[in-house]
Amino acid sequence: MDFVETDVNVRYAETDQMGIVYYANYLVWFEVGRVAWSKARGFHYADMESKENRFMIVAEASCRYKSPAHFEDDIIVRTALGKATDRVIRYRYEILKKSTRQVLATGETAHVIIDRDFKPARLPKHYRGYFSLPSK
Amino acid sequence: MDFVETDVNVRYAETDQMGIVYYANYLVWFEVGRVAWSKARGFHYADMESKENRFMIVAEASCRYKSPAHFEDDIIVRTALGKATDRVIRYRYEILKKSTRQVLATGETAHVIIDRDFKPARLPKHYRGYFSLPSK
Amino acid sequence: MDFVETDVNVRYAETDQMGIVYYANYLVWFEVGRVAWSKARGFHYADMESKENRFMIVAEASCRYKSPAHFEDDIIVRTALGKATDRVIRYRYEILKKSTRQVLATGETAHVIIDRDFKPARLPKHYRGYFSLPSK
Amino acid sequence: MDFVETDVNVRYAETDQMGIVYYANYLVWFEVGRVAWSKARGFHYADMESKENRFMIVAEASCRYKSPAHFEDDIIVRTALGKATDRVIRYRYEILKKSTRQVLATGETAHVIIDRDFKPARLPKHYRGYFSLPSK
Repeated sequence: MDFVETDVNVRYAETDQMGIVYYANYLVWFEVGRVAWSKARGFHYADMESKENRFMIVAEASCRYKSPAHFEDDIIVRTALGKATDRVIRYRYEILKKSTRQVLATGETAHVIIDRDFKPARLPKHYRGYFSLPSK
Repeated sequence: MDFVETDVNVRYAETDQMGIVYYANYLVWFEVGRVAWSKARGFHYADMESKENRFMIVAEASCRYKSPAHFEDDIIVRTALGKATDRVIRYRYEILKKSTRQVLATGETAHVIIDRDFKPARLPKHYRGYFSLPSK
Repeated sequence: MDFVETDVNVRYAETDQMGIVYYANYLVWFEVGRVAWSKARGFHYADMESKENRFMIVAEASCRYKSPAHFEDDIIVRTALGKATDRVIRYRYEILKKSTRQVLATGETAHVIIDRDFKPARLPKHYRGYFSLPSK
Repeated sequence: MDFVETDVNVRYAETDQMGIVYYANYLVWFEVGRVAWSKARGFHYADMESKENRFMIVAEASCRYKSPAHFEDDIIVRTALGKATDRVIRYRYEILKKSTRQVLATGETAHVIIDRDFKPARLPKHYRGYFSLPSK
């Protein structure tokens, strides 16, 4: 599994009255992880939308929370490609506390490739390599 | 000043580690207020975007915070039209605690009418009445 | 399964540039559902924190997205208690489009009861009934 | 005016269906700017809360939006101290597009120093220097 790492510093906005990061924000960090993963693979997800008219709509998301994150914590978001076809892409994530590399959370998402009309579509051919798919 | 009132119940997601509603969320409530104001005037803002290709982009926003809001508080968002032309619309807001009608915050926003290409535009003619503008 | 229903109207803030509700916001709606479920059962979750010093920290969350939600959609959040002990509580959710009762998403969360020091704890005895647990 | 700069990369979560960053998120970026400003001055705001029991509650916030920010844009948040006493602190902000240094937005916030009971308080004496206040 080939994880790409990116850094996040916990924002006050991300905390809740329990004094920890609100649980939905981990899914935002997963998205930050996907963007970093794409850059590491050589493309910008923004271009896939604006130039290729292909969108990766989320079909499934899950997260297991092991230890809370706190305001001003330096966090590492680790993102790896899971099972991928040219129609469905899966990712895996690990959220780490940077200072100790303690795993705070793990998660997965699944995404379906769609076009601008929300119809199922395929990855553009020249994107297949980015997702470790054989060229056709 | 003709205020339209709508209710909001404070979400856990909206609190921060100070145990109160995070300050940026008042601007989200202002937006909830604008949607309620539009409905009270007889139109859906969603239709203005999807059917008229007119968008009200925010040009200015301000808020004065007088007393904090807490999780599960019942809140009233009061929204009134301020100065309006067919190019620039202003709103005023009051955020009240429902149980006591204590004013927790006040605010203003200004919006510029644009088209889908982000070029300055005018309100559709048949929307002028909604904004108390004389028909042309 | 005994679902409690509550209404949400989609906020502009909850949409993203795909023109649909951003995926993390469904977890916020789940939380809105839990608060409504608690009220229907006869207690305020806010009181459990402030008066009992018991917190329900999220341990797991998952969501399957079937059809997107859009700005100004009226949404029904359906929340049911899943497996519950006095240490771990599980919920199930269904997100419906109100006009058609189409299921837009389903999800689950698991919560661990902790005290103010984030140590594992038990539900207060007089809360057991709210969670369909036999009184001890 | 002594601006401290920090970088933000626009998250998908921060966009709305207009295809640009939702207006409330600029206030979140202001907060990211304040944290960076504090670090540059030599302290962590998190410590001020946890070690000194002093909180900077927001009393006023305003933003003027000049040009929209888009997904994946590299943004610079510039933060400067405005008028400060040991009871009320003001900041000024500029939001820039990194590639061109175009100013996308400007803003101000005012903060009141309070204690854990939300009573007005003063800056801890050894924090006065961080805010360019003469030591007493």
